[in-house]
Amino acid sequence: MTLIEQLRAVNTASAYNRAAGFELLAADDGKCELAIDAKPDLLNHAGVLHAGVMGAMIDTACGFAAASIVGAVVASHFSVNCYRPGKGQRFIARAEVTKQGKRQLFASAQLFAVEDGKDDVLIAGGDVVLLVA
Amino acid sequence: MTLIEQLRAVNTASAYNRAAGFELLAADDGKCELAIDAKPDLLNHAGVLHAGVMGAMIDTACGFAAASIVGAVVASHFSVNCYRPGKGQRFIARAEVTKQGKRQLFASAQLFAVEDGKDDVLIAGGDVVLLVA
Amino acid sequence: MTLIEQLRAVNTASAYNRAAGFELLAADDGKCELAIDAKPDLLNHAGVLHAGVMGAMIDTACGFAAASIVGAVVASHFSVNCYRPGKGQRFIARAEVTKQGKRQLFASAQLFAVEDGKDDVLIAGGDVVLLVA
Amino acid sequence: MTLIEQLRAVNTASAYNRAAGFELLAADDGKCELAIDAKPDLLNHAGVLHAGVMGAMIDTACGFAAASIVGAVVASHFSVNCYRPGKGQRFIARAEVTKQGKRQLFASAQLFAVEDGKDDVLIAGGDVVLLVA
Repeated sequence: MTLIEQLRAVNTASAYNRAAGFELLAADDGKCELAIDAKPDLLNHAGVLHAGVMGAMIDTACGFAAASIVGAVVASHFSVNCYRPGKGQRFIARAEVTKQGKRQLFASAQLFAVEDGKDDVLIAGGDVVLLVA
Repeated sequence: MTLIEQLRAVNTASAYNRAAGFELLAADDGKCELAIDAKPDLLNHAGVLHAGVMGAMIDTACGFAAASIVGAVVASHFSVNCYRPGKGQRFIARAEVTKQGKRQLFASAQLFAVEDGKDDVLIAGGDVVLLVA
Repeated sequence: MTLIEQLRAVNTASAYNRAAGFELLAADDGKCELAIDAKPDLLNHAGVLHAGVMGAMIDTACGFAAASIVGAVVASHFSVNCYRPGKGQRFIARAEVTKQGKRQLFASAQLFAVEDGKDDVLIAGGDVVLLVA
Repeated sequence: MTLIEQLRAVNTASAYNRAAGFELLAADDGKCELAIDAKPDLLNHAGVLHAGVMGAMIDTACGFAAASIVGAVVASHFSVNCYRPGKGQRFIARAEVTKQGKRQLFASAQLFAVEDGKDDVLIAGGDVVLLVA
């Protein structure tokens, strides 16, 4: 299996990721793109993307970005800045490893709302601290 | 409606919270207890609670803790410390407002795994910064 | 040397800690108390404790709390919630390890402003993720 | 006074910033560069830049980045990722506002160690949540 096939198998092996509909678009060389289609079960009482889903996408995208260079990792800390209400047909997290150490990696992600015919809108950003598993 | 009835109506009005199965056990005077039963769709590839669900519970419990004293709020930042793998039959977040300002509140939560006949196990903790809506 | 003497030697060996005036009041069993007297060089343009000093005290107190159980540590991440302007004659950080792992520890601290004849006032709180060195 | 002169006056009005030696190199349009020369009083027991100074530089640079577009601000939360030991002759924080709202701004900064004849080394990064004052 290629690296992306291996990481997609991990994505599929996660019941949460399957249920939420996480699609692993790309993961290579410390970077990752993870997408999700908007659907009712992801929304909060105000009808916008639940902050928990923002966090899940940022955590997951950063995890795959790190896994693309060191294999299995486990998140020890993550944080999320909620910039704007998450309105859109689709959401894409773009993550990148910012520092690779022997025992620990740091990664950051930005989360965008995507609509046909419109520019992507940055709705959240976040950081993750990961331990090599 | 009493306060808890109002906040439970908000919880039920959130499609995400319904789909995940968030139960608002208590919310009063800046404190909140939020519970969820373990089910396959909440687990990651390793078979433990997905970090995104940890974040969603911490964010949501802190939101209700804040809402119990000031009404509508919106999270601007949250962070999660992942202490232990989340294994259990049920998970309970206990949140508390740590500082109430005019425009902004801070809240903290601890997330416990609960099993019959065992002590609760602290699996994660986190902080949320909220704006009065 | 006793544990507190060893940790006080580390405190004294830090030029920053000496210059700032950090006093290590106690450090044992995963807990720590660190104090500082207010002085002009610690204040920001508004005449209150600089947020950077809040962070330094929280980071340092959490470091000593962790060092009291595992020896040398290094901070990988820390965060600070700024609750109130830091006004006082003296400031005390009270830190505690919240989770001890083999490779990594988590600690939290609260920072109080102290004035003679008044109740301590909570001015900031924060979390630190530490690696065993 | 021009904007940079006004912000430099704020920098100079802060006793902490003067004592630490913060130099406001640039602040305009939501961006800021803040520098400091290495000196013994900024170092920890291991002889590298104290994490508290990393936090102070990140907090301060983000504050000036925000102030350059909205005037007075106050930090409510900041976090720091400590990537590498801070060794260098000089340190420069480069900050940028990532989201400007009416009541609240988010900013991020990267902190670099600078040595003559060498490439800048990224030693820390961080985020700040700020309220419009």
